[in-house]
Amino acid sequence: MKQSQLFTKTRREAPKDEVAKNAQLLIRAGFIHKEMAGVYSYLPLGLRTLNKIRGIIREEMNSIGGQEIHLTALQDKRNWEATDRWSDEKVDNWFKTNLKNGNEVGLGFTHEEPLTALMKDHISSFRDLPISAYQFQTKFRNEERAKSGILRGREFLMKDLYSFNVDDKAHQEFYEKAKMAYVKIFERAGIGAQTYVTFASGGSFSKYSHEFQTTCEAGEDLIYVHEEKKMAVNKEVFNDEVLKDLKLEKSQLVEKKSIEVGNIFSLGTRFSEALGLNYKDAEGKSKPVVMGSYGIGPGRLMGTIAEVWSDDKGLVWPESVAPFAVHLVALFDEAGTVKKAADELYEKLTKKRIEVLYDDRDTGAGAKFADSDLMGIPKRYVISEKSLKSNSIETKDRLTGKVEMVPIR
Amino acid sequence: MKQSQLFTKTRREAPKDEVAKNAQLLIRAGFIHKEMAGVYSYLPLGLRTLNKIRGIIREEMNSIGGQEIHLTALQDKRNWEATDRWSDEKVDNWFKTNLKNGNEVGLGFTHEEPLTALMKDHISSFRDLPISAYQFQTKFRNEERAKSGILRGREFLMKDLYSFNVDDKAHQEFYEKAKMAYVKIFERAGIGAQTYVTFASGGSFSKYSHEFQTTCEAGEDLIYVHEEKKMAVNKEVFNDEVLKDLKLEKSQLVEKKSIEVGNIFSLGTRFSEALGLNYKDAEGKSKPVVMGSYGIGPGRLMGTIAEVWSDDKGLVWPESVAPFAVHLVALFDEAGTVKKAADELYEKLTKKRIEVLYDDRDTGAGAKFADSDLMGIPKRYVISEKSLKSNSIETKDRLTGKVEMVPIR
Repeated sequence: MKQSQLFTKTRREAPKDEVAKNAQLLIRAGFIHKEMAGVYSYLPLGLRTLNKIRGIIREEMNSIGGQEIHLTALQDKRNWEATDRWSDEKVDNWFKTNLKNGNEVGLGFTHEEPLTALMKDHISSFRDLPISAYQFQTKFRNEERAKSGILRGREFLMKDLYSFNVDDKAHQEFYEKAKMAYVKIFERAGIGAQTYVTFASGGSFSKYSHEFQTTCEAGEDLIYVHEEKKMAVNKEVFNDEVLKDLKLEKSQLVEKKSIEVGNIFSLGTRFSEALGLNYKDAEGKSKPVVMGSYGIGPGRLMGTIAEVWSDDKGLVWPESVAPFAVHLVALFDEAGTVKKAADELYEKLTKKRIEVLYDDRDTGAGAKFADSDLMGIPKRYVISEKSLKSNSIETKDRLTGKVEMVPIR
Repeated sequence: MKQSQLFTKTRREAPKDEVAKNAQLLIRAGFIHKEMAGVYSYLPLGLRTLNKIRGIIREEMNSIGGQEIHLTALQDKRNWEATDRWSDEKVDNWFKTNLKNGNEVGLGFTHEEPLTALMKDHISSFRDLPISAYQFQTKFRNEERAKSGILRGREFLMKDLYSFNVDDKAHQEFYEKAKMAYVKIFERAGIGAQTYVTFASGGSFSKYSHEFQTTCEAGEDLIYVHEEKKMAVNKEVFNDEVLKDLKLEKSQLVEKKSIEVGNIFSLGTRFSEALGLNYKDAEGKSKPVVMGSYGIGPGRLMGTIAEVWSDDKGLVWPESVAPFAVHLVALFDEAGTVKKAADELYEKLTKKRIEVLYDDRDTGAGAKFADSDLMGIPKRYVISEKSLKSNSIETKDRLTGKVEMVPIR
């Protein structure tokens, strides 16, 4: 894409009311726009990165047999009354509104209830199981405070997968597969080294749930990390009994701030019993389906990457999620020689299906380099009068800063 | 995909409260699920078709220079007060809700206001124009009645593009390009022959707007069609003055019911003036930006295709939007010969990147054919003991019913 066509502009300063580093950088670089606290729009560069993240998650969800669907935001209260999660006393972050006939409806903050109810149309026998289904869908949560940029939104995109199995054993097998898929997702998104499988409280149906926590100063959570075992314990279950259970020594653990980038839950039969999702087993006996849920917020993941991979000049995207692979920066001369060479190079790279943002603007070198550093595209190719003297481009790696002269072929 | 893995089941009867043909068929075939009146979830097959439609629209929007973004559902009322569209007296289908601090927010039923406000960060000079930006985003409209299935939803996906130009002339040029892109979209989606560019009322900034109306018994609109000129006039502007203006004779026009599948609007400076979106022209003079808006509901389009392309047996998808290209139906024998041949053929087709739904279920031929007709995948390949005797498959075209024996190579 030619940068002269990109409608977004970078800016020196983030809005004054924006205190989160991730949002400050992403707003300044033109990736997102703040509509109100905790509510952000995605602009072309931001949507490209968000889609790269979605693509990684989708591939890994498909690889464990997940089938993609799309549920609705508007929620029928009857499903939520059945599980006792409708009242504001039980769930304190509902957004609710009214139909013309006065009936109250909710805006989904999660989707166990509607999907469990939906599955009653499709599950009747053990032969119909296992099933796992996922979606990328907008959740609404009426947060009291929303000061963490895209790490905690009142409206945000969520990938939520739900699994349906005949019994605990089958559930546990799927759960382990999902856990490994999550490990892969965070590795592929460039934060594998900082992300720990973390033991957290499990609720009524299992001893523990698992969170994926990325260590980072901006984190709202506290975890205790065992570096060698690449695991951690959430502060909420950090006690002697749990440590003994997990065979961990307090002395080996280091307290760190972290961001919860994913979580996986065993739900047992909590939702299937409440909503009547049963199947007939091989003997014809009716049994409730055993469920699990598995969440990742692609926006939160993008914000986490922005927190982890940035420096004082701006964003530093891992290749797998960068909006473009190459930032071609042309420093035009008056003769038009540089423009001609840059246009040709842009064509050539594009034909090779390399994703290039081509800075073809009539702007000075300083502003171009500052914008390029701020946007954080992994490879910068600078083409200028000087570089053309040796028929070369100057390449610069955004992460390492390494500069090389590479001949134009 | 193997059909034994697909979690959805077909059903003989649609829910009793579902009166729209499109939703009846789509629910029976397992494409969508009704959450409540006017609120539908998309299941795996339905999401595949919806994504094909999105893909066509995206390509055509990109081809006219549209840049994809993603705005939010939650709306800051200040933007809407500025244009006098916040009060329920002015706009009667708002859904509204409250933040914890008591502030009222709306759920976007369209996005002129937030995008106009957003563009103030990115437009300051004539050099920044033209811009066009679009999104696929969920709209919420508190409809009094919602009985038309996915043709009219309380929550629905919308592709909305907005254009920003320096003056009416530049706007008009873009508007014509957008109109042609819309014509292409409906052709590619398989309803070109039934879809008419229709003159409708233009509002304060232009004489007419243009709708794209697909003639169909399920339609809620009435239009007057000129078959040869491939154009129509909406009933709302069907009067002598307009006919004279458009050089049409009443006698040449035929009244038809139709579904509005798209519309394009010149907005003039209605929104830019109200929200202060101005640019400096070449002389440094401040001027309001001239805008247009261009909408298509991908879900409504899917529902329209289902209305137009269906028969008493079920859906009949055009190839371009079908969830799969081929329905491979295997009628297993006891020896396992058919299964072996069908598995091989499935592998072979999949390797060629042909999208195949492989009915590998242990079900009788009658049920398999009925499901196949209901789902409406364009090509059916039947493999059976009988067909294998001549080392062939029996192919059947869902639209024409034409059957052929084709040798397996």
